[in-house]
Amino acid sequence: MSVVTSGRYTFPSYNLVFFIFLQLGLHSVEGVWPLPQSITSSPERYPLNPQAFYFTYGSQSAAQEGCSVLDEAFKRYFSLIFPDYSSGYGFLRFSVDKPFTVQVSVGRDDCDSYPDEDSSEQYTLSVSAGQASLKAETVWGALRGLETFSQLVYQEDFGSYYVNKTEIKDFPRFQFRGILLDTSRHYLPVQAILKTLDAMAFSKFNVFHWHIVDDPSFPYQSRTFPDLSAKGAFHPMTHIYTQSDVGRVISFARMRGIRVLPEFDSPGHTQSWGKGKNSVKLPTSSQSDLLTPCYSGSSPSGTFGPVNPILPSTYKFMATLFKEVSSVFPDSYIHLGGDEVNFSCWKSNPDVRAFMLKMGFGADFTKLEAYYMENIVNITVALNRTSIVWQDVFDYHERIPKDTVLHIWKGLPASYAAELSAITKAGYRVLLAAPWYINHISYGQDWRNYYTVQPLNFSGTEEQKKLVIGGEVCMWGEYVDATNLTPRLWPRASAAAERLWSDEKQTSDVDKAFPRLQDFRCELLRRGIQAEPLFVGHCKHEYQGV
Amino acid sequence: MSVVTSGRYTFPSYNLVFFIFLQLGLHSVEGVWPLPQSITSSPERYPLNPQAFYFTYGSQSAAQEGCSVLDEAFKRYFSLIFPDYSSGYGFLRFSVDKPFTVQVSVGRDDCDSYPDEDSSEQYTLSVSAGQASLKAETVWGALRGLETFSQLVYQEDFGSYYVNKTEIKDFPRFQFRGILLDTSRHYLPVQAILKTLDAMAFSKFNVFHWHIVDDPSFPYQSRTFPDLSAKGAFHPMTHIYTQSDVGRVISFARMRGIRVLPEFDSPGHTQSWGKGKNSVKLPTSSQSDLLTPCYSGSSPSGTFGPVNPILPSTYKFMATLFKEVSSVFPDSYIHLGGDEVNFSCWKSNPDVRAFMLKMGFGADFTKLEAYYMENIVNITVALNRTSIVWQDVFDYHERIPKDTVLHIWKGLPASYAAELSAITKAGYRVLLAAPWYINHISYGQDWRNYYTVQPLNFSGTEEQKKLVIGGEVCMWGEYVDATNLTPRLWPRASAAAERLWSDEKQTSDVDKAFPRLQDFRCELLRRGIQAEPLFVGHCKHEYQGV
Repeated sequence: MSVVTSGRYTFPSYNLVFFIFLQLGLHSVEGVWPLPQSITSSPERYPLNPQAFYFTYGSQSAAQEGCSVLDEAFKRYFSLIFPDYSSGYGFLRFSVDKPFTVQVSVGRDDCDSYPDEDSSEQYTLSVSAGQASLKAETVWGALRGLETFSQLVYQEDFGSYYVNKTEIKDFPRFQFRGILLDTSRHYLPVQAILKTLDAMAFSKFNVFHWHIVDDPSFPYQSRTFPDLSAKGAFHPMTHIYTQSDVGRVISFARMRGIRVLPEFDSPGHTQSWGKGKNSVKLPTSSQSDLLTPCYSGSSPSGTFGPVNPILPSTYKFMATLFKEVSSVFPDSYIHLGGDEVNFSCWKSNPDVRAFMLKMGFGADFTKLEAYYMENIVNITVALNRTSIVWQDVFDYHERIPKDTVLHIWKGLPASYAAELSAITKAGYRVLLAAPWYINHISYGQDWRNYYTVQPLNFSGTEEQKKLVIGGEVCMWGEYVDATNLTPRLWPRASAAAERLWSDEKQTSDVDKAFPRLQDFRCELLRRGIQAEPLFVGHCKHEYQGV
Repeated sequence: MSVVTSGRYTFPSYNLVFFIFLQLGLHSVEGVWPLPQSITSSPERYPLNPQAFYFTYGSQSAAQEGCSVLDEAFKRYFSLIFPDYSSGYGFLRFSVDKPFTVQVSVGRDDCDSYPDEDSSEQYTLSVSAGQASLKAETVWGALRGLETFSQLVYQEDFGSYYVNKTEIKDFPRFQFRGILLDTSRHYLPVQAILKTLDAMAFSKFNVFHWHIVDDPSFPYQSRTFPDLSAKGAFHPMTHIYTQSDVGRVISFARMRGIRVLPEFDSPGHTQSWGKGKNSVKLPTSSQSDLLTPCYSGSSPSGTFGPVNPILPSTYKFMATLFKEVSSVFPDSYIHLGGDEVNFSCWKSNPDVRAFMLKMGFGADFTKLEAYYMENIVNITVALNRTSIVWQDVFDYHERIPKDTVLHIWKGLPASYAAELSAITKAGYRVLLAAPWYINHISYGQDWRNYYTVQPLNFSGTEEQKKLVIGGEVCMWGEYVDATNLTPRLWPRASAAAERLWSDEKQTSDVDKAFPRLQDFRCELLRRGIQAEPLFVGHCKHEYQGV
C-alpha cells in the first residue's frame, strides 16, 4: 500500500461512494450535467415508447416546422434518447402505447441566425403525464432544454425508457463557455472537430474557439492568399481546411447553438505564415515581407521573427486577410492573439530600431507591440467586430478600445485572480482560460481542479465581476491530435462546463459532483463519445469502438 | 514565453530535427523499431508490386505450407505491407512486374506449439534483388523477422512500394518483454485486448501479462467456480471473460508469438473473490470462507480482509482453481501476485492470532504471509509451473523455490537497482517493471524516461546480470479502459520495447531515437493503432477513426 504516484495499487475512499451508487442503480434528475439552476422532481414517472414519442412546436411558438435548427435537433435528440431503437436493436413494447409529446415553444423566430454573445439560453422545462413543455426565448435556449430533457430520460434494465415528473428553470451563469482546439501544432481532421462540437453541446458549451493557425502550420485555406496554406500547411492538400470545410464546421456548430470564434494570432506565433509570404521571393511584392528578417550582427541571418510591424504593407495584408475572415466567420468576435511576442528578432533588425527611434519608442519594444496591436484591433473595429486578445496586450498597454475582450491565460491561482482584478478595474471584459489548460495532464483525478475553480473569487466590485464574461477550456496541440483528443477532453472539460453553467453554491461540493459526473461520462459513452474513466468502475455500455 | 508546464506555447529545439527529417522525406532502414542488433543496408532499392509479391517457405524449412502460425502471418503482413492495395484503394502498376519473393525457413517445425520462456527469437534477413531470405530457428523468430521486413518496405509519394538491399542479424537482448493489462479495475472488451496484442507484435513484445482479477472485479469466468464471476464481476453477463474469450486471446497471442501469463493475485487484492465466496452463506461449505473476516473488538465487523491463510479449505480451493488455470493457460509461468497485503484484518481476527501462536510466528505477520505464499507456490510447483510473484514475497522471506521469478514494482531508480542486486545475489531470476508504470502519465515527452532505463545498471556480477530475464510495461487500470488504453500505451510502450530488444550501446542516444520513434508512430497509425503523438508535427496518414 502506498501513495498514488508510486503505489502498485491504491483505493481511495471516495470510490466507495461510487460503488454504492452503481449498485443501487439509482437514477435521479440530479443526473443532469451541468446542473440546472432550479430543478424539482418527483418519484412519479412516465414510460416512454419510441413509437409514440413526438417533438412538436407549441402553437404559440414563433418558430414552427421548417425551423432548421429545431427540426434537426428533434431528429438528433430522438436518436440520443432512444439509442437502442435508433440503432435497430429496439423491439416493440406494446405495453406502452400512450403517446408522449415534447412541445417546444420559442419567443423569437431566430432559426436562421447565428448564436452570438447576447443570445439568451434560458429555458423552462415542465415534464408531466404524457407531455413535456419546453419554453425558451430563442432557439438556442430551446437546444439547451432539449439537451436537459434527453438527460432526464433513462432506461431500465429490461430496456424500458422512463422520465420523471420534473420542473426546471434554467439559464447559464456565464455567457461565454468555450473550448479551444489548436489545429496548427497538429492537424485535426474535420470529423474530429465535428465530434468535439457534438460533445460540447452535451455539456452546454457554446463557443468553439478555433486556434486555427500558429507557428507549426497554417491549415486555413485562404481565398485571398492561397499560398499561406499551400506553403504553410503540413501538407497542401491533405492537411488543410478548405472554405467548404470551414463552412461545414460553422454550420454544424450553429445547429448546436455553438459560436465559432476564429483566432489568427499575430504578431508572434506566425512562423508558418512566413512560408507563404517570406520564403518565396516574389518580384518586389511587399507581401513577401510579412515576417521581420532577423539579423546576426549587420546582416540578415536568414531566419524570420514576428510579423514586421514597421511596414505599411503588413497592415494592408492584415486588413485584406481579416476582411476575408470576417466574411467567412459570422461571429461578432475575432480573436487576434497578441501573446508571447519575442522581441529579440525585432531588436536585431536595424530598420526596426530606426522605426523605434522615429516613433519615439526608445528601447521599449512593448510600445512597438502595442503600436502593432492597436493597428490590428482598429482593422477589426472597422469590420464591425469585437476584438478578443490574450492578456499580454493589456499587460503592455491600455490604448485599446473599451469593448475589447481580454483573455487570461497566465499564471497560478493568485496571479490570475490579480489579473482579473486589474483588467476589470480598467473596465474591460475578461475571459478566463488560465485554470483550464486541459492539455496539461497529470495522474489521477485532475478534473477536481477544473471543477473547483471559482472565476469570481477575486478582489473587485460587483460591477467588475459582471465583466467576467466566462471561461474557456484550452486544448493546446503540442501532444494532442485526433488519436487522443477525445479521451483527454472528456469528461475533464465537463467539469469546467458545470462550473461555467451552474449555480456556484449548488455545485460547491466536488465529492457530490463525482457520482454525477461518473454517470454523465457513461452517458457520453452511450452517445459514442470516447470519454475516459474518472476512476475504477464500469458503465453498463462500455466503449466498443476499438 | 515560459516553461512547458505553464506556457501558452513552447517549442523545444529538438523538434527542429523532426521537421528536417520529415521535410527531406528520408527513409532509412534505421527506421526499424526496435532497432535490430546488426543491420547493413545500401541505397540500392527494389520496387515491389503487390500483384507479384509472395511469401513462400524455403525448401529446407522444417515448417511448410499448413503451418498455421506462418500461413496466417503471411496474410497479415501482406495487408500491413500493402495497405492501399489491401483496402481496395490500390491500382495496378504495370511498370513493375518482376516478382519479389520472401522465402522463410525455420529450423524446427514448432507450428503447433506455444512460445515459451526459452523460445529462440533470433533471425537473419537478407534482402536482395527479387527476393528476401528470412531464416530463424523457430516460427517465433520468423515472426520477428516478418515484422522487421514489413518495416523495411516504404511507399513513395506517388504510391510505389520499395525495399532497400539490406542484411540483418537480429535477436532480443532480453527474453521477457511484457505488457501488463489490468482487467479488474476496468473491464476491457476482448477486442481491446486483441488490438493490444496486435500492436505488441509491431514492437516485438512477447508476453501479455493478464492481471485478470483484483479487488474491484473478477471477470474471469471459472469452469469450476462460476460464482466468482457471477457475483464478483462488474456485470455477470457483459463484463466477463468466458472460457471461449480466454481461448481466443491465447490463440490470437500465439499467432503473434506472444505468451499469455495469467495473474491470480492473492492473498491481498481479492475483495472481488469474496463476493462469490463469502457474501453468500452456503450451507456449512468451507468455500464460503475464503476471505478473512475482520473483527471490530471481539465481534466480526462484517468486512473481509485478505484470503484466510489459516484454513485448510483455502488451500484446497486454491489448488482446484490453479489446476483449472493451468489447464486453461498453456504458459509455463503462473503469476501468483503476493503484493501489498494489509495485515490489519488478520491482526484483528482472534482465530488468526491463535494460529500465529500455534505456528510460532509471534507477532510477525510477514511470517504468516510467507507461510501462505509458500503453500500457494507449492501448488504451482505441483502443477509443473514456474511461479512469478511480486517482490514483496522476496522482501518478506526467502523460503521459496529457486526457480521462482521475482517481479520488481517498487521504488525510485536507486531502490529498484538495490532490489535487482539483492534478488539476483540470492540467485533468483528477476523481472523489472518499476520504471515502466506507464499508467502514470505526465505532461510532455515522458517516453524519454522509459527509453533511458538501464535494467542492468546495478551492482552485481555477470552471473547476477544474467538473472534479469527482462522487463514489463504495466498499464494499471485505475484511470484506464478501452476509451484511452491505446493512446496511453502507444507509442510510449514502444520506447520500453526498444530498451528490452536492442543493443544498449546502439540505442544510448534518446535524441537519435526521437525521429525514429516519430516515424514508427506514424507507421502504427497507418496500421490502425490509435497511437498518440510525441510532439508537434504530422503523419502522412493521420488517424481518421474518430
